[in-house]
Amino acid sequence: MKIALFPGSFDPITIAHVDIVTRSLPLFDKIVVGIGLNSSKQNLLSPDKREEIVKSVFASYPTIEVRAYEGLTIDFCKQINASYMLRGIRSTGDFEYERAIAQINKTMLPSAETILLLSQPEYSAISSTIVRDILRNNGDVSQFVPKEALPFLKL
Amino acid sequence: MKIALFPGSFDPITIAHVDIVTRSLPLFDKIVVGIGLNSSKQNLLSPDKREEIVKSVFASYPTIEVRAYEGLTIDFCKQINASYMLRGIRSTGDFEYERAIAQINKTMLPSAETILLLSQPEYSAISSTIVRDILRNNGDVSQFVPKEALPFLKL
Amino acid sequence: MKIALFPGSFDPITIAHVDIVTRSLPLFDKIVVGIGLNSSKQNLLSPDKREEIVKSVFASYPTIEVRAYEGLTIDFCKQINASYMLRGIRSTGDFEYERAIAQINKTMLPSAETILLLSQPEYSAISSTIVRDILRNNGDVSQFVPKEALPFLKL
Amino acid sequence: MKIALFPGSFDPITIAHVDIVTRSLPLFDKIVVGIGLNSSKQNLLSPDKREEIVKSVFASYPTIEVRAYEGLTIDFCKQINASYMLRGIRSTGDFEYERAIAQINKTMLPSAETILLLSQPEYSAISSTIVRDILRNNGDVSQFVPKEALPFLKL
Amino acid sequence: MKIALFPGSFDPITIAHVDIVTRSLPLFDKIVVGIGLNSSKQNLLSPDKREEIVKSVFASYPTIEVRAYEGLTIDFCKQINASYMLRGIRSTGDFEYERAIAQINKTMLPSAETILLLSQPEYSAISSTIVRDILRNNGDVSQFVPKEALPFLKL
Amino acid sequence: MKIALFPGSFDPITIAHVDIVTRSLPLFDKIVVGIGLNSSKQNLLSPDKREEIVKSVFASYPTIEVRAYEGLTIDFCKQINASYMLRGIRSTGDFEYERAIAQINKTMLPSAETILLLSQPEYSAISSTIVRDILRNNGDVSQFVPKEALPFLKL
Repeated sequence: MKIALFPGSFDPITIAHVDIVTRSLPLFDKIVVGIGLNSSKQNLLSPDKREEIVKSVFASYPTIEVRAYEGLTIDFCKQINASYMLRGIRSTGDFEYERAIAQINKTMLPSAETILLLSQPEYSAISSTIVRDILRNNGDVSQFVPKEALPFLKL
Repeated sequence: MKIALFPGSFDPITIAHVDIVTRSLPLFDKIVVGIGLNSSKQNLLSPDKREEIVKSVFASYPTIEVRAYEGLTIDFCKQINASYMLRGIRSTGDFEYERAIAQINKTMLPSAETILLLSQPEYSAISSTIVRDILRNNGDVSQFVPKEALPFLKL
Repeated sequence: MKIALFPGSFDPITIAHVDIVTRSLPLFDKIVVGIGLNSSKQNLLSPDKREEIVKSVFASYPTIEVRAYEGLTIDFCKQINASYMLRGIRSTGDFEYERAIAQINKTMLPSAETILLLSQPEYSAISSTIVRDILRNNGDVSQFVPKEALPFLKL
Repeated sequence: MKIALFPGSFDPITIAHVDIVTRSLPLFDKIVVGIGLNSSKQNLLSPDKREEIVKSVFASYPTIEVRAYEGLTIDFCKQINASYMLRGIRSTGDFEYERAIAQINKTMLPSAETILLLSQPEYSAISSTIVRDILRNNGDVSQFVPKEALPFLKL
Repeated sequence: MKIALFPGSFDPITIAHVDIVTRSLPLFDKIVVGIGLNSSKQNLLSPDKREEIVKSVFASYPTIEVRAYEGLTIDFCKQINASYMLRGIRSTGDFEYERAIAQINKTMLPSAETILLLSQPEYSAISSTIVRDILRNNGDVSQFVPKEALPFLKL
Repeated sequence: MKIALFPGSFDPITIAHVDIVTRSLPLFDKIVVGIGLNSSKQNLLSPDKREEIVKSVFASYPTIEVRAYEGLTIDFCKQINASYMLRGIRSTGDFEYERAIAQINKTMLPSAETILLLSQPEYSAISSTIVRDILRNNGDVSQFVPKEALPFLKL
């Protein structure tokens, strides 16, 4: 069974995240969307809210499972028997970040392979950071997040 | 009337900022230097002090207006009727950052065009971040900030 | 009078070129689209054909002038009294190339300022190189070049 | 049936190519290694020799098929019913090149998805260009090409 | 006497740091490993612990001296009579950061020359940031830090 | 004896090359400026002319030796007992190129260490390619090449 982990903070999930996951569906038997609960990072949305949003976004996909996790991503990978890490890249900055993480992960868990998909051009500027910034300034994020997320984002 | 917005934190303004603005003067009828008051960012200088410095730097330029603003940059753009966003770029890191911001801005306000000018080579290492770091270590920043700013920077 | 030079080989012109020029129209009184005839470069289309295509593309724009030139771009700049060089950038590779050219140009002709516009995301992969490659393999380039160019590109 | 195309010039194939293909084996039912015969490119090895080498390298893999092709890569993709393009990336230069090609391919053939794998760090400097350069200077390439290729590379 | 400063936070020191210093030994008469005590940065390890670790790592090298310092790096450079700043680079992100710092340093202290060494590929993903992240998640960092550091890193 | 090789095509030598070599003088007992005679590359200047120019540029430096070489750079390195390769970097493009070459060289000759110096900002756009382009268009290159080279460059 081919299982991929799509890890992230999803604070909040964006349409760029959704695009990467749905384009990858035919490649894997199951994709686990893993919501990393990194306590040292200051988040806008609570872990529960982030999980609720992501679950509502992917509710209709039978091969997508949404789970929150603590600790190292590779430990969660082992726990869910994922052989693949799935990541989207938008820019050379993303590329160098993903390359470093993938190399560290491969040193610590040689069996896990990182698979990269390219962001679609029209989504390549969208990031959770920018969405949070717009939310903090009371701007309209409806073009950047999935419609299922909108009701949760009235700050 | 061709109005450009040159947005930034200006914490503090550097000679690299001044260079971009003055080189752009002939292109526009008015340039508004917009001091963004992003409350979530920890600044070295107070909003009032930053505004006072920037105003003293550009006091002799009749087509430059200095204004502080809160909220989204595109909302301020609309408010002042600016059709152009003016930005300087120094590095590939800057380029990717500006590309993402410009793309988001264009999605939210299609009428605003981003115009990029290249930093002069001798200014390409200068940033507010580095100036703040030198100030915190009691170093001499006189080669990096306009002379009008110096009296304000005795920390 | 604000004159900008938009220099290139235009072998052939693409919709990404057209997009940069038309977005810049309000900034300048005149834009000269300069077709560089660099004899050492191997081109797909003859200088005459390239000029004919570019002229047909911009025929309806009163403030755009199309001219072929030989020799250094800065010499042509002086000849047409252009104070601005206009360029589009798509990638960090483009950025570093343009930065080097702009710096050399500024050393040789300090009065000329380079103005950069960002490619729109949906055009950011389009280049004359890729169009030539598709043409050589008998592919369909109608999504990448302006419709006025198509009749000229039956190879 | 999940079919991926791994296109390239393979002039000559390197251990970095082999690494990408073999790491991808579990993801696909079949991987077609497509040797592009681009007539405008000056190659070191003849098409026949390149095909012979690649076939000998992958002879023991039942799910790998080696084929030469002319014309556009997306046309070959359609011809062999491949839904995936497989590519390795080593550097930010590679990333920007692949992003442009993938975007053009997606415009011309929306059903084809590009999957990127990261080069292993120890292979990230190896390219056919460097191998050719060493060969032309009578250097030893045995650390850079698969052992099956060595007998073919006595120039 | 050729003295080089290798400045850093060393929070904690990694095998990538050690590799840069030991490869540079033959170039200099003395290398001072300078532990910057930047009070505004939040560190995982105390200044004393960082110094103790770095000293134990380099205890057997007679031409390496370990010292903590406060204030600007160039001021420490002058104080120890170092004519060279030694730095390792792993990525284009590192390169642009080092270029800016080196340019600022050269403006403030023209006599100091920055010497860059490239990370070995197998170490190019290792950073103190990633080691701290693994430590916070109770992961095993023994492949990333020198063995002398391990006893100090039981958090 | 610390010997460094500064390899290049020097077609022609620029002031940016001279800057890297002279800044490195105190680091080494001898610097060999190696003029690579790569027969497959099309040069503007003949090997003899390039050697004559470089020799005249460095005539007054007792620790600089100028030599032409054929074949692989690492073979020349061994022949002259150089333990160091010296290179200047200007951009992220340069950085990735040098990293690949250094990694290949280290695989083939582990004893040779690559030392990188950063171009000074005011020289960072200067390359032999741009100088050749200006020469071909009868432009003035006197700001880009050492004065000793000028008499040789009347094409």
